[in-house]
Amino acid sequence: MGGDVGRLRAAVVGTGLIGGSILLRLHEAGLRVVGWDPDPATRAAGRRRGLTFPDDLADAVRDRDVVFLGGPLPSLPQTLLTVAGLTDDRCVVTDVGSTKAAVAEFAGAHGLTGRFVPGHPMAGAERAGLTAALAGLFVDAAWVLCPSVDGLGPFRSLVGLVVDVFHAHAVPMSPGVHDSVVALSSHVPHLLAGSLAGAAADSAVRDAVVRLAAGSFRDGTRVATTPARRTADMLLANRAQVLRQLAEVRAALDGLAEAVRADDLPTLVDRYERAAAVRRPRPESAPPVRREFALDGDPADELAFVRSIGESGGHLTGCTVAGGRVTYTGVRPADAPA
Amino acid sequence: MGGDVGRLRAAVVGTGLIGGSILLRLHEAGLRVVGWDPDPATRAAGRRRGLTFPDDLADAVRDRDVVFLGGPLPSLPQTLLTVAGLTDDRCVVTDVGSTKAAVAEFAGAHGLTGRFVPGHPMAGAERAGLTAALAGLFVDAAWVLCPSVDGLGPFRSLVGLVVDVFHAHAVPMSPGVHDSVVALSSHVPHLLAGSLAGAAADSAVRDAVVRLAAGSFRDGTRVATTPARRTADMLLANRAQVLRQLAEVRAALDGLAEAVRADDLPTLVDRYERAAAVRRPRPESAPPVRREFALDGDPADELAFVRSIGESGGHLTGCTVAGGRVTYTGVRPADAPA
Repeated sequence: MGGDVGRLRAAVVGTGLIGGSILLRLHEAGLRVVGWDPDPATRAAGRRRGLTFPDDLADAVRDRDVVFLGGPLPSLPQTLLTVAGLTDDRCVVTDVGSTKAAVAEFAGAHGLTGRFVPGHPMAGAERAGLTAALAGLFVDAAWVLCPSVDGLGPFRSLVGLVVDVFHAHAVPMSPGVHDSVVALSSHVPHLLAGSLAGAAADSAVRDAVVRLAAGSFRDGTRVATTPARRTADMLLANRAQVLRQLAEVRAALDGLAEAVRADDLPTLVDRYERAAAVRRPRPESAPPVRREFALDGDPADELAFVRSIGESGGHLTGCTVAGGRVTYTGVRPADAPA
Repeated sequence: MGGDVGRLRAAVVGTGLIGGSILLRLHEAGLRVVGWDPDPATRAAGRRRGLTFPDDLADAVRDRDVVFLGGPLPSLPQTLLTVAGLTDDRCVVTDVGSTKAAVAEFAGAHGLTGRFVPGHPMAGAERAGLTAALAGLFVDAAWVLCPSVDGLGPFRSLVGLVVDVFHAHAVPMSPGVHDSVVALSSHVPHLLAGSLAGAAADSAVRDAVVRLAAGSFRDGTRVATTPARRTADMLLANRAQVLRQLAEVRAALDGLAEAVRADDLPTLVDRYERAAAVRRPRPESAPPVRREFALDGDPADELAFVRSIGESGGHLTGCTVAGGRVTYTGVRPADAPA
């Protein structure tokens, strides 16, 4: 993989909401892209939309430069193994699963870290399936990539696709940091939404609660309507981090509840003022970052640099390879350690 | 109060977001309306917008048919007492506070239940003040009214205003049921939002969490930016019900967390499927309700009927008084007890 993006041959395996949106965007951008889904009706629906959807997975991934793996989270390791067996070592593979440590470990155990880069485009919707897919789903979204020390080449190519084709923000992270962050930024919020909606569903005053649902209730229960199996898979794939971050949120909830019980106005006001800071817009003037590495240098330095960008709250805005050097551009929050 | 709505003389005392929006709509609808706020700058800002804002509260409420009390929740009982002392018994008074049992009890202790009808228009925003006010804020919103057995006349007039002028849904309830319902439909969601935002603000990976904030995180923390004092006042004014409903939500959260810990996929899927039901749109075909009462009948029957509409998840769509009879129209959920 590499060279002119428009000449790339791509495949998307598993064309639900996320995979389908990737497929639509690659098609719209003029790449030669093929879709495949285990569901024959989805393949037929894709063909009716003018997309190439062979019936045989081997036909879909043959001679591809890059393959995106979508589909249900628990299916991804096996899909990776199958696709790796059907393609050669020059074919870059990435996935879109919402947790990363397990699939990264699986890839390591099967000797695939040199061409598999775990990924997680952070966009979604409560709906599901190819019919819900949108070519523009990833514009300005964060797209996490988890490079390994022996997979920097594929990582660089994917940064180019993420930025130039999807107009998303490339966020490099280690798999472990990713899983810890999304536990708090996505998974625990799903638990809170499920508990609020669940308590309301079982309440003696349920109909009146629904009738008087304030914006806070509607917001706080929205993701409870995500397909239940998808939510459950996501939570179970990140159990340790979900339970760890949930403990932090419960401690904060205990503090608020104790202040309510004690009729303690100053503590409540103080806690809400501190909490609100996390919603304040960050300064637009995040300083730009630019770094070059020799392609024959120590890959650990390059890996540490790109991870530090994503793990400090920044993202990459570009990656170019020329003259034996790779140049990264990006931004990171003004107060992040350099 | 009564007769032609367009001839009504109204006042709004305390013109922040909610009071200010009431004032703007009454003005827009052509009523003769006067505003007052304890803050001289707010009065001056109101005058610059072409509204009538005397400096003296007594001038603002003199000879009014109806007075709406806005302003911070803890100030409402004293404001009620002041306004009641400045007006005569024909002047109907209502408030907009987000809890109702305390102010209803206060009105009873001061012999004001015959003309004070506790109210709660369920609309809002994270912003505050007259500058954030919008004449259309209450369109299609629920507007709770808590009539007493000796205050049905003022209640009927207010239903007319809520429906015909504000185009809101009039939801009659007892103060206690209101406070129980809003604890779950509004106050506990504020606690969850505060705990999620608070945990993120204190997190070691805070910047990355903000960077990867999924829709679930943004939704789940939105109301954490409500002015902190307003949120704290609301929670403390409804302590007993907030803590009771929080216990229900925590029990649901415990159930989800235990299923995650036990890697129990079927239980998680089942709980999320049940929880999602509370977000499903209710059938459009809620059966209409129409009931007449003789004005000289037993007011307890009329009170029980109107409360049953709101407490079962329905609302009133109209109230007309003619020929010694009052006629209510409304809707209630199809599966509510008749």
